[in-house]
Amino acid sequence: MSQTRHFAAVILAAGKGTRMKSELHKVLHPIAGRSMLHHLMASVDSLSPDHKVVVVGAGREQLEQALGHDARTCLQEPQLGTGHAVQQAQEQLAGYSGDVLIMYGDVPFVRAATMGAMLDRLNADDAPAAVVLAFEPEDPLAYGRVITDDDGRISKMVEFKDADESERACHLCNSGLMAAKADDLWALLDRVGNDNAQGEYYLPDIVNIAIGDGRVCAAVTTDDPNEVAGINSRSELAAAEAQWQREQREHWMAEGATLRAPETVFFSYDTELAPDVTIEPNVVFGPGVKVASGATIRAFSHLEGASVGEGCEVGPYARLRPGAVMETGSKVGNFVEMKKAVLGEGAKANHLTYLGDATVGAGANIGAGTITCNYDGYFKHQTTIGERAFIGSNSALIAPVTIGADAIVAAGSAVSRDVAPGELRMVRAEQMVKPGWADRFHDTMKKKKAAAKKG
Amino acid sequence: MSQTRHFAAVILAAGKGTRMKSELHKVLHPIAGRSMLHHLMASVDSLSPDHKVVVVGAGREQLEQALGHDARTCLQEPQLGTGHAVQQAQEQLAGYSGDVLIMYGDVPFVRAATMGAMLDRLNADDAPAAVVLAFEPEDPLAYGRVITDDDGRISKMVEFKDADESERACHLCNSGLMAAKADDLWALLDRVGNDNAQGEYYLPDIVNIAIGDGRVCAAVTTDDPNEVAGINSRSELAAAEAQWQREQREHWMAEGATLRAPETVFFSYDTELAPDVTIEPNVVFGPGVKVASGATIRAFSHLEGASVGEGCEVGPYARLRPGAVMETGSKVGNFVEMKKAVLGEGAKANHLTYLGDATVGAGANIGAGTITCNYDGYFKHQTTIGERAFIGSNSALIAPVTIGADAIVAAGSAVSRDVAPGELRMVRAEQMVKPGWADRFHDTMKKKKAAAKKG
Amino acid sequence: MSQTRHFAAVILAAGKGTRMKSELHKVLHPIAGRSMLHHLMASVDSLSPDHKVVVVGAGREQLEQALGHDARTCLQEPQLGTGHAVQQAQEQLAGYSGDVLIMYGDVPFVRAATMGAMLDRLNADDAPAAVVLAFEPEDPLAYGRVITDDDGRISKMVEFKDADESERACHLCNSGLMAAKADDLWALLDRVGNDNAQGEYYLPDIVNIAIGDGRVCAAVTTDDPNEVAGINSRSELAAAEAQWQREQREHWMAEGATLRAPETVFFSYDTELAPDVTIEPNVVFGPGVKVASGATIRAFSHLEGASVGEGCEVGPYARLRPGAVMETGSKVGNFVEMKKAVLGEGAKANHLTYLGDATVGAGANIGAGTITCNYDGYFKHQTTIGERAFIGSNSALIAPVTIGADAIVAAGSAVSRDVAPGELRMVRAEQMVKPGWADRFHDTMKKKKAAAKKG
Repeated sequence: MSQTRHFAAVILAAGKGTRMKSELHKVLHPIAGRSMLHHLMASVDSLSPDHKVVVVGAGREQLEQALGHDARTCLQEPQLGTGHAVQQAQEQLAGYSGDVLIMYGDVPFVRAATMGAMLDRLNADDAPAAVVLAFEPEDPLAYGRVITDDDGRISKMVEFKDADESERACHLCNSGLMAAKADDLWALLDRVGNDNAQGEYYLPDIVNIAIGDGRVCAAVTTDDPNEVAGINSRSELAAAEAQWQREQREHWMAEGATLRAPETVFFSYDTELAPDVTIEPNVVFGPGVKVASGATIRAFSHLEGASVGEGCEVGPYARLRPGAVMETGSKVGNFVEMKKAVLGEGAKANHLTYLGDATVGAGANIGAGTITCNYDGYFKHQTTIGERAFIGSNSALIAPVTIGADAIVAAGSAVSRDVAPGELRMVRAEQMVKPGWADRFHDTMKKKKAAAKKG
Repeated sequence: MSQTRHFAAVILAAGKGTRMKSELHKVLHPIAGRSMLHHLMASVDSLSPDHKVVVVGAGREQLEQALGHDARTCLQEPQLGTGHAVQQAQEQLAGYSGDVLIMYGDVPFVRAATMGAMLDRLNADDAPAAVVLAFEPEDPLAYGRVITDDDGRISKMVEFKDADESERACHLCNSGLMAAKADDLWALLDRVGNDNAQGEYYLPDIVNIAIGDGRVCAAVTTDDPNEVAGINSRSELAAAEAQWQREQREHWMAEGATLRAPETVFFSYDTELAPDVTIEPNVVFGPGVKVASGATIRAFSHLEGASVGEGCEVGPYARLRPGAVMETGSKVGNFVEMKKAVLGEGAKANHLTYLGDATVGAGANIGAGTITCNYDGYFKHQTTIGERAFIGSNSALIAPVTIGADAIVAAGSAVSRDVAPGELRMVRAEQMVKPGWADRFHDTMKKKKAAAKKG
Repeated sequence: MSQTRHFAAVILAAGKGTRMKSELHKVLHPIAGRSMLHHLMASVDSLSPDHKVVVVGAGREQLEQALGHDARTCLQEPQLGTGHAVQQAQEQLAGYSGDVLIMYGDVPFVRAATMGAMLDRLNADDAPAAVVLAFEPEDPLAYGRVITDDDGRISKMVEFKDADESERACHLCNSGLMAAKADDLWALLDRVGNDNAQGEYYLPDIVNIAIGDGRVCAAVTTDDPNEVAGINSRSELAAAEAQWQREQREHWMAEGATLRAPETVFFSYDTELAPDVTIEPNVVFGPGVKVASGATIRAFSHLEGASVGEGCEVGPYARLRPGAVMETGSKVGNFVEMKKAVLGEGAKANHLTYLGDATVGAGANIGAGTITCNYDGYFKHQTTIGERAFIGSNSALIAPVTIGADAIVAAGSAVSRDVAPGELRMVRAEQMVKPGWADRFHDTMKKKKAAAKKG
C-alpha cells in the first residue's frame, strides 16, 4: 500500500513559542544538530508527499529561509486556532484531492511508520472522514480523550474539562495530529465554529461533526507516547534531546559500538558508526560524521563533518572539523584540530597541532606544535605534505607550500618555500650564547621584585 | 513587615565534620564555587541582620580567616551540644534584645524567605517563645517529630526514640533551626539540662520548657525538604551540589538559555546568562561569569571570571580565565586560553593560543599557535594589539609590546619590539636547504634502528 | 578457614558472545580499564588457587594471548552446554582432588568473599556434594529457582518453565556459579544427560542428581544481585561499567575525596586517591594513577599511568600519560601533555606544552607553547631542565639537550645545543621591519577579494 500513497503534508508552525523566550522561531531550535522542523520534514519526506505546506505566522522570514525551496508556506494571520491554521493551506492545495496529513512543527519525532499507518487507515474500506493519532500516556492528565469502539472507530472526541467520569477513565488521548481526505477536510473545516472560551476554531472538532453526519472516524494509536510529545520550552527541548540521545546510544551499542559511558556521548542526527568502534567518555558528534570499524574515539573529542577510517585513533581532546578525513590507521592526538584536511594512511599528528586546508601523505609524522598557516587574512591556501615526511615540532608551514615525500623539516622552522622530496629544510637562527647573563638577570630582577613589594 | 525586622543570626559551626575526612573545615567546603558557610551567610545578609555570630570550635582559624570582618566568632570549647553552642554567643550579643535566628553552617541552603517567615512568625500576635523550622520529608525516618495543632502551634517536640505510634505517624520533623527573642532564648537555655545518653544540652529542649511554662511555640514548615538538608560527608556534599545544579539548569532554561545536555553543564553560584545563550554539552562555569544574548558556549569550555559579549562564540575547548573579556561578536576557538585579556569586537583567536595580559583591537585576527609572552619570571607585562592587526601563526609576542592597527606579523615571528601601524614585521632566519640530506638521514637511521633491534 | 583453602578455579569462556557484535572475545572487553576476564581472575587470585583453567572455544587465540602464563586453557569444541564445558577441564586437573570453583568469564564481579563463602560452605560438616551461588533479584523473571530449607540446603533446582506456582513464588535464583569437590564433580558430570530441548549437558543438573543420591547440596546467597550479573551485550557492558563507577565514586568520597560532580568522574580499576583530593567535573582516569593528598584535578583532565604529588594542581585540560610524575606542589595547566616526564617540586608548565621524555627541575618555569622535540622519527631522546630554569614561550627544546639550572631560554628559541647553568640562550633572527608593507598588502588583497567575489 505504501507505494500508492498520495498525500499532502500540512505542518502547523504559526505559534509564537513564547515560553522558549527566544528570537529564534520555536520549530527551528535544534535537537541533535537538526531543527525540530527538519526532523519532522525528514520523516514526511521519506513517504514522498505530493505537497508540503507549512503554516507560518510570527517569525515567517526565519521559517522561509530555513525551508528554502523545500516546502511552500502560507500565512496564518491572525491566529484563530488549529482549525483556522489548517484552512490557510487550502489555497496552496487548491485542486488537490489526495489525502492531507496534518502535523505540528513542535511535535518533531512522529515516525514515518506512524504517518503511514494514519494514511493507510484513512484509505481502509470503511472510508473514514478523518483519522486521529491517539496515544496512551502513563499519566493522561488533562489531555482530550478519544472514545473508541474495539475496532478503533471513534464514537466521540471530548475535552478533558467536558468529559464525564467514564470518559476520563479512558486513557486514550488525542495528539492533535490528523489525516483526512482533502475534500472532506475543507468541507468539515468550514463547519467548525468558535463558540468556546478562547473563541478559536479547533481542528479536532471536525471529528465530532463528521460523526454527527454518520461518517466513520478512526483512531490510530502509537505505542510510544514520546512520539507525540510537543516541545514548548527549553526544558522540554532538553528533555527531547535527552530521550533522542538515549535511544541512539542504545541503538549504536546494539550495533556493536562500545560506549564506555553512554550517558556522556552525544550523537548527531546523522552519525554513522561501524561495529567495534570504541567511544570513551565525553565525546560530542556534530553533523556529518562517519566512523569505520576498529576506530577508537578517545575521551573529550569533538567531531563534525569528519570521516574516521578503520583502526584510527582519535584524541583524547581531538577536534575534527568539517572536511577532516582520517585514512586507515591514522592517528590524531591531544589538542589537535583538523579542518578540510586529509591525514593519510598511518600518518600521525599527535599533539598540539592545527591542520587546515592540508593533505598529509601516508606514514607522515607531524610533530607537536605544528601549524599550517592556511590564512593570509583574505584567502585560504593549501599545504601538501608528502608520504613519510617528518615535520619537526613547533614548525609553521606557510601555505601555499608543498613538503616532498621523505622530506624533513627541522624543529621550529617557519617554512615559506616548497621542500623537495628527501630534502632537509631548516629555518633557524644561530644559537646565541650569553654565559652568566641569566644569573645577572636573576640578581637584578630579584632586587626589583623586592623593591616593588616594599614600594 | 520585612523592613522592620531586627535580628541577630547565630550560626553553629563548631562541629568537627569527621565524616568529611578533611583538613578543611566542613562548612568551608564549596558548593557551586562558594563555601557552604558563605551560601548561608549570603541568605542571612539579604535580610540585613543586626549581628552575625558564628560559633566555632575545631578549625577556628580557618573559619576566622574565611569570615574576615564579615561576622564575629565565639568559641565553643568543649562542645556540649547545640543548646550549649548557642549559649556561647550570649556574650557577643550582650545587651541585644532583638530576635535571634539560629542556623547551622552545614545546612547551607535555607532560603532567605524561609528565615524571614520564621522571624515574622516570631513576631505574630500570639508572641511565641520560639519558632521551629519544620519539614515533611518523603521518608521521615528517625527524625524528631514536631506535634502541632492546626494553627502550627506546637504541643510537643519529641525525639523519634521517645515517640509513641501516633506521634511517629506525624511526619512533621524538626530541622533544628529556630528563632527566639533574645531574652527568652537566654532564659530558656539556662534551664536546659543534660540528662540524656550523650550528656549534651540540646537546643530544641527550650521548646518543651516554654510550652511547660504555658508559652506558645510555633512551627514554620518549609515546602522544600531539600532546604534543611544537612551536609556531613563528601557524598552529601556532592548530592547538595547536584541538587543545586539541577535547580540552576531549570532556572536558566526557563530564562531562555538552550542547554543541549543540561546534566553536563555546571554553573557557579553567580553565573549570569542572557536569553538566547546556547550552551553545548560539557561546559563548566567558575565564579564571576556573565554571558550576553546570542552567545554560544561550545562543548568542553571552561569559564571563570569572564565576560562574554553578544553573539560571541566560545570554544569548543576554550578556557576563559579571570579578566577575560570578549566583546561583541568576537570568537575564541579550540585550545585557546585568555587571562586578563580583552578581545575586541569581532576579533578572533581561533586555535591553540594564549592571550594573557593583553588587549586585542576590534577585527584583529590572532593566528593559530600565537603566544603572548607576558611573564619574565618576575613580572607580568602587557601586549597591545591594534584594530584589524593580523598576527601570523606560531608567533610569540614578547611583552611589553604593541602591535599597531592593520599591522601584520609574519608567521613564526618572535616579536620583541613594537610594530607600527600598517607595518609588516617578520622575524625569520633564512630557509636553509639541504637537498638529499633527509634521504641520507633516513638511510643511516634505518640501519641504526635495525642494529638496535638486533642488539 | 581461609588460609587452608585448596581449590582450582574453572572459568567458562567458550561462548561466542554473538550479541556483542565484536571481533574481540566477549570476556576481553574492558570495564574500568581491565577486561572482564581479568577482573574475575584478580578476585580468584586473591584466594590463591592451586590451579586456574579457562575453558575456551571461539577466539581461543585472543584468550590465550590475554592470559599468557596466568592460567591454563582447555578447548571446548563443539560446545554442548555448561556441564560439558566443565568436563573439558578434567584432563588439566587430572589427579587433583581439592575443591573446584566454577566461574563464568562474563560474570566478572563475583567478590572474592563470595567465592570464599562458597568454598567454606563446601567444606562444612554436612559435606555438600555441590554448592550453588544463589541470588534474590528484584524481579526474578524466568531465572531457574533454587528451592531450599531454612539451613540453605537445597531440596530441588528447577527451571522456570518446569516450576509450579509455589516454586515460582520462591525468589531465590540460580546464578549458575558452583563449587564441588573434584571427585564428586567429575563423577556427577558423567551422569548428566542431554535430554532437553537444546540437547545440551547442563551443569546445574549435578545438583538434582546428587540430591537423588541422598547427598546434601547447599546454596550460598549473595546479598548483592549485581555480583552475579552476566554481560552479553554492549549495553550490559555499559551498565556494568556504570555500576562499578557508582560504587567507586562513593568509595572515594567516603575516603575523603571531593568529587564535585561524581557522575562525571571515571575511575580505573586501580586508581588511588589520598584524602583531601579534589576532583572537578569531567575527569577520566586511565590505569595506573595515584594522587596524593591536597592535589586538585581540574575539569576536563585525563590521567593515565601518572603520579600526582601533594598539593599539585592538574588542569583544566591536562593530559598526563604513562610515566608522568608531578612532584609536590607542581602545576600542569591547560592543553599540556606529559609523557615519561618528571616535573620537579613547585615547577610549572601552565599552557599549551608538550613534555615528553623529560626531567624538569624544582622551581623551573616552562613557558606557554614549549615543546620538547623528543623524537627524530626513529628514536626518542631525553630533555633535562635544571632547577629554576626559565623556558621562554614558544620554545622548541631539541633533544637530547640539557638546560642548566637558573638558565633562561628566550621566547621563540629552537634550542639544539646544551645551555649552561645561568646562561641565556636566544635563537632568534633579526626583527625585519617593513613600514607600510601591510597597508599596501591590505589594499592589494581587498581588490583581489572583491574581484574574486565578482568573478
